[in-house]
Amino acid sequence: MSIETIAACQGTGFRLQRGQLLRVIDPLGGQSGDLVAFRWGDATESLSNGRSIDYNGKLYFSKGDVLYSNRSEPMLTIVEDDVGCHDFLYSPCSIEMYRIQYGVTGAHPNCLDNLSRALADHGIAPHMVPTAFNLFVNARVQPDGRMVIAPPRSKAGDATWFRAEMDLAIALSACSSVGCNGGAAKPLAYEILDG
Amino acid sequence: MSIETIAACQGTGFRLQRGQLLRVIDPLGGQSGDLVAFRWGDATESLSNGRSIDYNGKLYFSKGDVLYSNRSEPMLTIVEDDVGCHDFLYSPCSIEMYRIQYGVTGAHPNCLDNLSRALADHGIAPHMVPTAFNLFVNARVQPDGRMVIAPPRSKAGDATWFRAEMDLAIALSACSSVGCNGGAAKPLAYEILDG
Repeated sequence: MSIETIAACQGTGFRLQRGQLLRVIDPLGGQSGDLVAFRWGDATESLSNGRSIDYNGKLYFSKGDVLYSNRSEPMLTIVEDDVGCHDFLYSPCSIEMYRIQYGVTGAHPNCLDNLSRALADHGIAPHMVPTAFNLFVNARVQPDGRMVIAPPRSKAGDATWFRAEMDLAIALSACSSVGCNGGAAKPLAYEILDG
Repeated sequence: MSIETIAACQGTGFRLQRGQLLRVIDPLGGQSGDLVAFRWGDATESLSNGRSIDYNGKLYFSKGDVLYSNRSEPMLTIVEDDVGCHDFLYSPCSIEMYRIQYGVTGAHPNCLDNLSRALADHGIAPHMVPTAFNLFVNARVQPDGRMVIAPPRSKAGDATWFRAEMDLAIALSACSSVGCNGGAAKPLAYEILDG
């Protein structure tokens, strides 16, 4: 398939078959995206940061690392990574997050809505969406445990490649937060290739 | 009520009403425990490490910190803490974890079974159990992101106190892992007090 663009603050969903490659691209640079995965046809098995941290023995993931499901099965392997700086701790941004952290009073686009809408046909409600793999999010733990979020290190055209280790329902969201995206929400892009 | 003991490798569940205090005690020292919470009567709202990390801006939690739900509502406040060293990253240990990390081939007691059994009457299945607040687990992030788990710093009789910020269904498990518990799984204890 060709490269598909996700407009700023929007999301999308698609099937990724076992062995296929997913390339997630930051077209303009400095933009982050949320990726979640469920086993195709099973809304009870989803991406798990807790299992991935345990089995990899680390908090920061890049080329060669395997991301696991809540049932301890390999879901995705990172096979190439131009950026090497991602987050796997923060919950997807939500309307409540924008109210608490940014003082927003009305509506605001957010990754939780984008991801759950993209997966609604699979019977996945917002409360079932796990912590996403937060592509290009530059969040780092300080020695005392404080979290510091800086602009993404991704430059225009940088990408991270994943291989599907099982048939997956994937959702991707171009994050709406200005804090995670160097001051402006921008598009994201992706393509699917046979492995 | 009096102090209740949870036998080594076992778990329990109970109601904690808004305003009540829960004191979780390490009776012998060097033992960790997993705590999860759901809104009483609503299996779709549960403890969220991702929201708690976001709203507290940090990874390590102790006295004065609020633990949030997946709907961004305060669930528990840590009001006293003799230990000040806990983990909120690792998924509850499971039979799959013991197979992968310890080479166990048969049955093994585990926190995921303990927590989900304790909450089964609330319609909570294992895949719905979130990352627990891992009391007394001494897991620390190294500067390069690697995780190092050391024995708990808790001494005999040390405790951590929580205040319920909503009516909660709580499950507690005395962790079965030798790696997290200084070489031997031991009992845990708790008491509930009116605030």
